[in-house]
Amino acid sequence: MRLSSRSDVPPFHAMAMAGLAAEREATGAPVIHLEVGQPSSPAPAAVREAARRALDHDQLGYTNAPGLLSLRRAIAAHYASWYGVDVDPAQVVVTAGASAGFTLAFLACFDAGQRVAVIEPGYPCYRNTLMALGVEPVRIAVGPEDGWAPSPEALDATGPLDGLVVASPSNPTGTVLARERLTALAAWCADRGVQLVSDEIYHGITYGARAESALAVTPDAVVVSSFSKYFSMTGWRLGWIVAHPDLMEGVERFQQNLYICAPTLSQLAAVVAFDCAEELDGHVARYAENRRLLLDGLVDAGLTDRASADGAFYVYADVSRLTDDAGDLCRRWLEEADVAATPGIDFDLERGHSYVRFSYSGRGDDIVEGCRRLTLWVKERA
Amino acid sequence: MRLSSRSDVPPFHAMAMAGLAAEREATGAPVIHLEVGQPSSPAPAAVREAARRALDHDQLGYTNAPGLLSLRRAIAAHYASWYGVDVDPAQVVVTAGASAGFTLAFLACFDAGQRVAVIEPGYPCYRNTLMALGVEPVRIAVGPEDGWAPSPEALDATGPLDGLVVASPSNPTGTVLARERLTALAAWCADRGVQLVSDEIYHGITYGARAESALAVTPDAVVVSSFSKYFSMTGWRLGWIVAHPDLMEGVERFQQNLYICAPTLSQLAAVVAFDCAEELDGHVARYAENRRLLLDGLVDAGLTDRASADGAFYVYADVSRLTDDAGDLCRRWLEEADVAATPGIDFDLERGHSYVRFSYSGRGDDIVEGCRRLTLWVKERA
Repeated sequence: MRLSSRSDVPPFHAMAMAGLAAEREATGAPVIHLEVGQPSSPAPAAVREAARRALDHDQLGYTNAPGLLSLRRAIAAHYASWYGVDVDPAQVVVTAGASAGFTLAFLACFDAGQRVAVIEPGYPCYRNTLMALGVEPVRIAVGPEDGWAPSPEALDATGPLDGLVVASPSNPTGTVLARERLTALAAWCADRGVQLVSDEIYHGITYGARAESALAVTPDAVVVSSFSKYFSMTGWRLGWIVAHPDLMEGVERFQQNLYICAPTLSQLAAVVAFDCAEELDGHVARYAENRRLLLDGLVDAGLTDRASADGAFYVYADVSRLTDDAGDLCRRWLEEADVAATPGIDFDLERGHSYVRFSYSGRGDDIVEGCRRLTLWVKERA
Repeated sequence: MRLSSRSDVPPFHAMAMAGLAAEREATGAPVIHLEVGQPSSPAPAAVREAARRALDHDQLGYTNAPGLLSLRRAIAAHYASWYGVDVDPAQVVVTAGASAGFTLAFLACFDAGQRVAVIEPGYPCYRNTLMALGVEPVRIAVGPEDGWAPSPEALDATGPLDGLVVASPSNPTGTVLARERLTALAAWCADRGVQLVSDEIYHGITYGARAESALAVTPDAVVVSSFSKYFSMTGWRLGWIVAHPDLMEGVERFQQNLYICAPTLSQLAAVVAFDCAEELDGHVARYAENRRLLLDGLVDAGLTDRASADGAFYVYADVSRLTDDAGDLCRRWLEEADVAATPGIDFDLERGHSYVRFSYSGRGDDIVEGCRRLTLWVKERA
């Protein structure tokens, strides 16, 4: 048995860390989970009720490849209501999570050997999926010096590109791209025939200005989004793409061949997700309170240098005064303080060894206790 | 907006045909569906009940990448009970349908530019997914002359290969590979360092000898299987891979990066699927009766040349005495007789224009009525 050379893609370390934390917890250790990348709430009550009805009354066979028309219409209407953007349901394809959305977008837009810019620190699966598909990821570093946001000037320095992947709010930094910045990046892409792909899966989870959709500044962006985060439906594996009509034939063919369709029960249930704003905004209010607790707690632990954290539910903090190996630091925190967090190496191949991502999607009490333990650990061991 | 060159993969025409049939039905036409590639039954009652419990009691967040250990254990136990084959749960990865299983297997086993044999007629998504991933599909023709089954001699004629994909029972021919043939193919692969990938998604649906797993003749095969067909769970998007331990690191990394995990509700519910043999074997008994009705009905319509139909729920019939364009024939049948069937062009790029695939997964009454209409159509128009 020989693994292919491309199997050499990096693992998604966050999942390995979550595995270690679960193993430790299984031994009875009182682990505080600041490593998880998902809401601690279930799907909205109305979505679960719709799922019960579907279980009782629907055969749950395949849907057509682009997804249920009722759901595609609801998604299109969501763009009118949140962003004032006109989206035709025919531009929407329902996907098996944003993960499938990225694969479909990358296959439909990019050929093997083409060059696509990804931002570091950023979600590692863009880079790793592009590599799996034979596309060359071109890493663009952002950091405190540029407000953790990519700029046209940074792109100018990369050599020729075929695509650009941006995320707002970003995982792990929480950075929200202002409308002006998004407009400038879209114009830079349009001038050069570069395909813009916009990850908007954390939209709805922001603490200052709302995140703007790339579709509000250009009709040419491919938007990848998801029911996982704001809608609190990670395990339902449901997301969507909005793409220019010229790209839809490719997206649909790859969906037919590589996925058939997104999970049917999830599709049927998600139709009502857009009616659950009150419940879902309650989660965001909890994240806002958790964010305050975490930022205060990290100051107590001496971790004062961190990214903007305007959205999503992460704080990306500089730990270089404690270590030059964040992976080792996270393993020690887990073993010695029962606190799980994610080392930055997932998100930034160059500088990630100096950073840790903390998630505040859990319970406020746990965040306070986690920070207390880290403060003590730093005092005693560092 | 420019589509990538690789977006030129063929569509999966069966889904387009199903779309046309659904459109016609929406106008009130009494369409008989002999085009569908899925059971007409819902998931087993116990599976639906387990899903209800999961909806009530589980948060339905992400699982770990390889899938719930309870489900991987149940799948491993299934190999002992059905095939007498020892499988370690660590060799099992739960996937978002067999579709995801093929992508994961192909990525972990094959690099861009490598050559992988696929059988024609056969399921078109092997070929199209390989192409999407930059792997060259090498088409091996089988037909009535060789019992619709690939042979070592046919493989000898292909030039150097890196992989071979076989399916038993095959879609669209229903051909089941006898143990001796499977053994010969596995030996041919082992002698040449060729990776065998075995599609076993129709296992459990056979009408003579039971289908043998490739794992019963070699530990080196990658098996892709699914809860969709025998277990009657298509829209649940749940399948699995069994792979050699040497391949698992690659499979797991691609799962983390390209899928995160299979749908959680489906995973929780499927744990009990292996306890539902009585209900599921009832479906197979219905397929057996339907098969008899369809084969008799096709004889009445003069379509007597057909593949072996030992398993799955398809009859692949020669229509060359009626047309040299099966796509046109199927459109006429839909419009003029309200009978939907799938043209062979999906399954065989060379000779598919002379074949049609009929599915007998539906109701017996519908099959009888569909055949009556086709018999009349042939008498009047052909």
